[in-house]
Amino acid sequence: MASVKLSEISTRAPGKLDKEKTKAKTATMLAALDELQNLLYAESKHSVLIVIQGMDASGKDGVIRNVFGNLNPQGVTVQSFKAPTPLELSHDFLWRIHQHTPPKGMMQLFNRSHYEDILITRVHKLIDDDIAKKRMKAINDFEDLLVKHNHTHVLKFYLHVSKEEQHKRLEERLSDKTKQWKYNEKDFEEAKLWDVYMNMYEDCFKNCNTVPWHIIPADQNWYKEYLITEALYTLLKSLNMRYPGLKK
Amino acid sequence: MASVKLSEISTRAPGKLDKEKTKAKTATMLAALDELQNLLYAESKHSVLIVIQGMDASGKDGVIRNVFGNLNPQGVTVQSFKAPTPLELSHDFLWRIHQHTPPKGMMQLFNRSHYEDILITRVHKLIDDDIAKKRMKAINDFEDLLVKHNHTHVLKFYLHVSKEEQHKRLEERLSDKTKQWKYNEKDFEEAKLWDVYMNMYEDCFKNCNTVPWHIIPADQNWYKEYLITEALYTLLKSLNMRYPGLKK
Repeated sequence: MASVKLSEISTRAPGKLDKEKTKAKTATMLAALDELQNLLYAESKHSVLIVIQGMDASGKDGVIRNVFGNLNPQGVTVQSFKAPTPLELSHDFLWRIHQHTPPKGMMQLFNRSHYEDILITRVHKLIDDDIAKKRMKAINDFEDLLVKHNHTHVLKFYLHVSKEEQHKRLEERLSDKTKQWKYNEKDFEEAKLWDVYMNMYEDCFKNCNTVPWHIIPADQNWYKEYLITEALYTLLKSLNMRYPGLKK
Repeated sequence: MASVKLSEISTRAPGKLDKEKTKAKTATMLAALDELQNLLYAESKHSVLIVIQGMDASGKDGVIRNVFGNLNPQGVTVQSFKAPTPLELSHDFLWRIHQHTPPKGMMQLFNRSHYEDILITRVHKLIDDDIAKKRMKAINDFEDLLVKHNHTHVLKFYLHVSKEEQHKRLEERLSDKTKQWKYNEKDFEEAKLWDVYMNMYEDCFKNCNTVPWHIIPADQNWYKEYLITEALYTLLKSLNMRYPGLKK
């Protein structure tokens, strides 16, 4: 991926795109994913790792619920990575990540990921550029290991919301009683670091692109869900999977 | 639970029950479960452990796909317990189980469980009655720990199919190309041990009833799915959960 300027990429669907038709397409692909996932599980040749990154309130939880909530939970696992524990910090930064990579036949979702180790940590100056560079190399090597040594297909999504949309959603967390539990008093503090985050994300896209990133305009849920469903559908279709016959 | 004779319990829905109306009820409850699960997660006071046991081809995978496949995968995890590994066997039989009990806010599904340690192991005489008795006590103590010390609500389901229905489904695994991958050459051998299995299940229901068992007539998927959805719905409704307000 060449240099990316996030401020130059729209956070919305193209104006001419028909919302209802797009939602219908998403529904058709989601229905087909049920069978494709069953094939993935039955064949047990490939696995899929889906990395979801994005700013606070960019809609990570919504994607998980609305796209992956349609699949068989026996074949999908979700792991959220929060601030590392003391035990996790006493290991290399990929130690806790590696434990959750998908076995063959399975889909694994990462709600945040090893990328936080070169994002939030850089924004808050917990690591310097030299360490960040070394971590980027390690991340590329790690993803290469998964891809080449266990038929793992890695889909990396950045949910691209605008600063304004983020602010609106954070306000909702304060006012909507069913969302207040999601609100963290540091949310608005963190939001002020917007520009630094954007720089760090851009640097990440530039340097960790052994597996390419999908930058997903995410101000509108229906468009975001369409693009992610489509990426997953296209990947699974391309694997030409078959039901195995009787065991020999 | 007093003594149970499985052969005296029907494996089918009551004849007068309307299939379409029942399916509609299931759909209504499943839709409500989306919100209830979100509450469970938001409140993070309770957790739910769902244990699914049953003979081969009793429809365990189908329940997971059709009932729990409607929920947010971020709040549900599925663990299948197969033949224990050497590492697992070098620990007590509950060691590998305890690692997968649900944290607060989460639902955990067990596809087979610690009950295999007093079922298949007894059928194949890997353990004697004395060890079985000790394990039953340990299982009761263990479930008591979960219930009393972490607000875990345990739902235990036995999928009750008839011998004839099982045979039909195993035959399908041989003939249906999309199901052949599920077929194991030992399936029919194992099926011959039907009566011994029934005895061991009856002994299990009698002795491991600190948390009661739900015996689910399972020859018809629509009825099985209705009963399981209803049990889960009734449980979650009874918890009187509320969205927490802003963190203090």
